[in-house]
Amino acid sequence: MTQPQTVDVPLEDRSYKIHIGSGLIEQLGTLCAPFIADRHVVIISDEKVASHYLPKVESALESVTSRGNSLVVDEGETSKSLDTCYQLWQEMIELPADRKSVVVALGGGVIGDLAGFVAAGFARGIDFIQIPTSLLAQVDSSVGGKTGVNLPQAKNMVGAFWQPKTVVIDIDVLETLDDRNFRAGLAEVIKYGLIMDDALFTRIESSMEAILNREPAIITELIQRCCQCKADVVTEDETETSGRRAILNYGHTIGHAIEAVYGYGEYLHGEAISIGMVAEAEMAKALGMVDDVFCDRQKAIFESAGLPTTCPAGKEEALIEAMTRDKKVASGKLNFILPTKIGDVESVATPGGEAIAAALKACS
Amino acid sequence: MTQPQTVDVPLEDRSYKIHIGSGLIEQLGTLCAPFIADRHVVIISDEKVASHYLPKVESALESVTSRGNSLVVDEGETSKSLDTCYQLWQEMIELPADRKSVVVALGGGVIGDLAGFVAAGFARGIDFIQIPTSLLAQVDSSVGGKTGVNLPQAKNMVGAFWQPKTVVIDIDVLETLDDRNFRAGLAEVIKYGLIMDDALFTRIESSMEAILNREPAIITELIQRCCQCKADVVTEDETETSGRRAILNYGHTIGHAIEAVYGYGEYLHGEAISIGMVAEAEMAKALGMVDDVFCDRQKAIFESAGLPTTCPAGKEEALIEAMTRDKKVASGKLNFILPTKIGDVESVATPGGEAIAAALKACS
Repeated sequence: MTQPQTVDVPLEDRSYKIHIGSGLIEQLGTLCAPFIADRHVVIISDEKVASHYLPKVESALESVTSRGNSLVVDEGETSKSLDTCYQLWQEMIELPADRKSVVVALGGGVIGDLAGFVAAGFARGIDFIQIPTSLLAQVDSSVGGKTGVNLPQAKNMVGAFWQPKTVVIDIDVLETLDDRNFRAGLAEVIKYGLIMDDALFTRIESSMEAILNREPAIITELIQRCCQCKADVVTEDETETSGRRAILNYGHTIGHAIEAVYGYGEYLHGEAISIGMVAEAEMAKALGMVDDVFCDRQKAIFESAGLPTTCPAGKEEALIEAMTRDKKVASGKLNFILPTKIGDVESVATPGGEAIAAALKACS
Repeated sequence: MTQPQTVDVPLEDRSYKIHIGSGLIEQLGTLCAPFIADRHVVIISDEKVASHYLPKVESALESVTSRGNSLVVDEGETSKSLDTCYQLWQEMIELPADRKSVVVALGGGVIGDLAGFVAAGFARGIDFIQIPTSLLAQVDSSVGGKTGVNLPQAKNMVGAFWQPKTVVIDIDVLETLDDRNFRAGLAEVIKYGLIMDDALFTRIESSMEAILNREPAIITELIQRCCQCKADVVTEDETETSGRRAILNYGHTIGHAIEAVYGYGEYLHGEAISIGMVAEAEMAKALGMVDDVFCDRQKAIFESAGLPTTCPAGKEEALIEAMTRDKKVASGKLNFILPTKIGDVESVATPGGEAIAAALKACS
């Protein structure tokens, strides 16, 4: 059995640990004891994840609290809305939850972002714990404190920086993750290699078969390395003010626009940013920042992971329109994170219409 | 002319200044220049305040930015809702506002709490500036970073701790504040004397005529002293975790219950906490913490300020029910802030049904 791993996120009084390994849901009582200690617990999950893991989580937490409730929402991105928050906040009052209650987010990225924001806003902020169940959430959204919901016009438009008390990543839950979602998660794993860790990128390139077979040792290793990358970035720039955290947005400016234009749900987030990275690498090439070798090598790894690298032509204008609405547009300027080599990126302000058009053309 | 006063709120990277004086709206450009510096501004106000002051504020800010929009909501507590937030967030996207935009809250407590939460949640938090226009907001809600909205079941149930970049208190705006609201604001002023500043209490007692005549010198002095009290408490306990900030809740446990049971709007907040302080002093008396002399002196000052000290009998059960739903109920225990003498209070956990009943009886 693979040894559990730990990653520290040192953020002064908001510091926490990420636990990564096999069989960790069974150990939730021990791992969460310091943060629950007989307090009232509200587990927030979605129908699909709840059907697989809610009883196990409830049972594991029984050793640390006698007071708990579970609130289950519909599966999918549509639950990441203010309406769902409103409903959950009302249900929490009825339980009643209070300002000492602890929210446990059990699910993928949608549940983590939603439950995190529900915790951030309830009684001006209560503690919460992340138990991410998708690969995407395990390597990205469960770490770093970004929480929030979508508005009809734009993704993640309303939210808060609200750090969890701990993150428990049980790799066994990936057993029930379908192939498409697993591959979408790999897009974020590959992104860490591209933006800041060339050794990780090479490791993924050379281990794709074992990764796609979900061998526990390589999966634990990849998640640990991604969480360490994320923790390093978040520690430097917790609230995305210094600019450092923005490197995580590689592929996301175009990726978010793709999600918005095609409707959330048509592409999974990981699929959209796979296309987004391919397009943004083309933009970097147009600006002379990378060459064909980089673009081909990047495209090849996404293809070997079974990820899409193009989307249908004809929506260029809508995509540009969606990008200017994206919250990363600061004072009218459009910023892109663009690669310079494997393991390094730079922020480029408003590369201009030509480079954007070239990028969009290349991905259609 | 009375000299402007300044109070510092030292909270590390969230520190800010409160400016108090006459004619400060005209000086907004100078006072806000460091926080706006040509950034996009969104002024949020209500219809009544906007009709008096919005053009003046817009004009004063023209010297520091060329890009501004004003969003005006209905007057009154009903605007302090998630529905209004949702509407404002959507309007802000359409403007478009972005993560560098600055929200200016121009109004009383409802607008400050609402606009502060709108700023806290938009793009995971953007800067905001408080321009409080009611006495209540000037001495209490505009300082300290508590923002939020009501749910149908409970007041201030959803929100965030989100500090303003500065607070500009122009006492001239009190000219358009009606007597009832002015007196309601005095309830919070008197509260500061009761909880932590016996000299302030004595000063109010001996100056009630000048205060009710709204003489600028005494008004500026009172607001400055209240803001200093609030700043001291907030600096010690920014997010209400150490317990110190809880002293500000004197009169509020019963006061909030009165507002909830009689419907927000029947009693003004200041009126409800005036009754709440009278009732909670009776509770303290029942517990042997204060004597008749204290209760009489406290009641007399509220009466001289023209504030209510009783509410109709017959709603005791509904009030107790509302209190247990109040967010200050931590893990099932009901906490009260009770006086021990003029200028000092203590936190008392669950004084028991008898003391609560005595308190409620005394205020009916």
